[in-house]
Amino acid sequence: MQPSQIQQLKCLPSVTELAAQKTLLIYDRKLEAKNEFKKWIYRFPKKMAVSAGEKLKDLNAFPQHMSRILKLSADISPQKLTVIALGGGSVGDFSGFVASVLKRGVRLVHIPSTWLAAIDSAHGGKTALNLPPYKNQIGSFYAAEKVLLVEEVLKAQPKKLAQDALAELVKIALIDSADFWRVLTSSKNKSPEDLMLKNLKRAVLAKWKVVLRDPYEKKGVRHVLNLGHTFGHFIEGHYQLSHGRSVGLGLFFALDWSLRKKILSANTYKSICEEMEKMGLIRQNFPKATRQKFTRLVLQDKKAVGGKKVRFVFVRAPGQTIIREVGVEAMSRQAHFSGWLK
Amino acid sequence: MQPSQIQQLKCLPSVTELAAQKTLLIYDRKLEAKNEFKKWIYRFPKKMAVSAGEKLKDLNAFPQHMSRILKLSADISPQKLTVIALGGGSVGDFSGFVASVLKRGVRLVHIPSTWLAAIDSAHGGKTALNLPPYKNQIGSFYAAEKVLLVEEVLKAQPKKLAQDALAELVKIALIDSADFWRVLTSSKNKSPEDLMLKNLKRAVLAKWKVVLRDPYEKKGVRHVLNLGHTFGHFIEGHYQLSHGRSVGLGLFFALDWSLRKKILSANTYKSICEEMEKMGLIRQNFPKATRQKFTRLVLQDKKAVGGKKVRFVFVRAPGQTIIREVGVEAMSRQAHFSGWLK
Repeated sequence: MQPSQIQQLKCLPSVTELAAQKTLLIYDRKLEAKNEFKKWIYRFPKKMAVSAGEKLKDLNAFPQHMSRILKLSADISPQKLTVIALGGGSVGDFSGFVASVLKRGVRLVHIPSTWLAAIDSAHGGKTALNLPPYKNQIGSFYAAEKVLLVEEVLKAQPKKLAQDALAELVKIALIDSADFWRVLTSSKNKSPEDLMLKNLKRAVLAKWKVVLRDPYEKKGVRHVLNLGHTFGHFIEGHYQLSHGRSVGLGLFFALDWSLRKKILSANTYKSICEEMEKMGLIRQNFPKATRQKFTRLVLQDKKAVGGKKVRFVFVRAPGQTIIREVGVEAMSRQAHFSGWLK
Repeated sequence: MQPSQIQQLKCLPSVTELAAQKTLLIYDRKLEAKNEFKKWIYRFPKKMAVSAGEKLKDLNAFPQHMSRILKLSADISPQKLTVIALGGGSVGDFSGFVASVLKRGVRLVHIPSTWLAAIDSAHGGKTALNLPPYKNQIGSFYAAEKVLLVEEVLKAQPKKLAQDALAELVKIALIDSADFWRVLTSSKNKSPEDLMLKNLKRAVLAKWKVVLRDPYEKKGVRHVLNLGHTFGHFIEGHYQLSHGRSVGLGLFFALDWSLRKKILSANTYKSICEEMEKMGLIRQNFPKATRQKFTRLVLQDKKAVGGKKVRFVFVRAPGQTIIREVGVEAMSRQAHFSGWLK
């Protein structure tokens, strides 16, 4: 897998006529609401508006989508065709899959429109469709040739979404290095949006460092990217909180457990938690869940190992993580201890 | 792309219990008719019978197939799961695509049950689905880890199919080398079945030699494998002849045109044609087609370059082929000259 070329731009790039002729633009129709974006979108003669969300990724709807896509791209040779995906995570997952199987694979460019896609899902080459009840069980490893991080697009989101995505930024800095952590936490008085924009490119490169050590997820190396996610997915599923928010709570859980297991020193624990709170990541408990529901949700997670075990990512220090296989029983005891379970 | 490991075996390999547990067998239901094969198939707890043919490759039916496949394979991790495809070209194209997108790619083993699959479609990593009217426009490059050429399976076909597939053997020998051509044509008095079995492995390795120079079809190198196919596809479409038979007639057409263009000497032409006829490849004309129909079918071919041109593979000598872009007009003049057009 070749890593994608990453470009951070103030504005959407200009559309030359020639490139537009050979391009299929797949975009989140919500973006048409903004006039500048609409004008840009309408420069592409071959385009398809989609409604973002998990439904877009449903394999049952795929033949119909593909029928439109084949008509739109019938007269462009696979060597020349480029798919541009303009949208958030679901648009990227869908369009990435399309690009990977259309004429046996065509060029792909991502222009993520959400912070979560910009910092995470647009990078690393995972594409995915769902076939309910199975999520993301159909897909490919297919990295974009380019990912454009376009500030005017990202800034068009509601402000609070940047705050929400900070958890993924914290996650990748903790995984990557003491240096990234230091740089991230030394940015004083920055808004969440500015923090994201300032650190986005480094976060993406840090993700690629991990991905390239195990591009096709054969060795378990990529699993470290699940820091905060094992518990986070329980939060997301049980409390229906946003992904970013859930990962934030998952990070606190991972830090708490790392401290309790003496993997993390009290001093480092305290300093990491303080920095996270300064960035606005809130540690907050919700009505307690039952142990049964917790166990079920954790074992349902697609990353579960089987046999009531999960691979959990612990933190020793910024830049030092440890993956251990743990029983779901031990995890639920920790969840009880942290005040999440009855 | 890693080339597949090729093994030629007398009989189907023994099924160990452990491997069977981690395997999804996708097989042509026709093979159950033979009792030994049925017994072998029933050793796999996770299996899916399919009806071979272009309908199997229809994307519209894919969500339903995939729903069964996900249920069957839900409890096997992607690292451990193997898809075995037992069948002809359509079963291989379908199963290969399934393996390439199931859990983002799992191990794939082909056991071709037809001569055409054994000599051609099971090798080189092309998988494909259709979305009528588009054929093979959805797919992936995904080579099998192993291809097992199993003599008892191949010999279970009606005898005449071996004769039919000889055209693909002739094609690959002509593309590959003077040496392969010499070895192929020096086998005296062999039955088509024996000729196929004796030369199968070498034919497959010759195909891989070409494929590895351009695995993802970016440079046009793989196009040489279309020798005999540009005209052959017209025959297949217009007269509804079998693929093997059509390619045979396509080879004679390519040789005739190569001679007329003085790419091929009269002596070499005569010797190649004689060898082909000795092998039972019949040169035979059918009721003449109109020039319009011919032009339409040739330009419809997915390998057409656009702008009324096609890339045609000519023969200079065994092991020496030349690709030239030619106008469809010139090609139809040659077809007229060879007695195919009104």
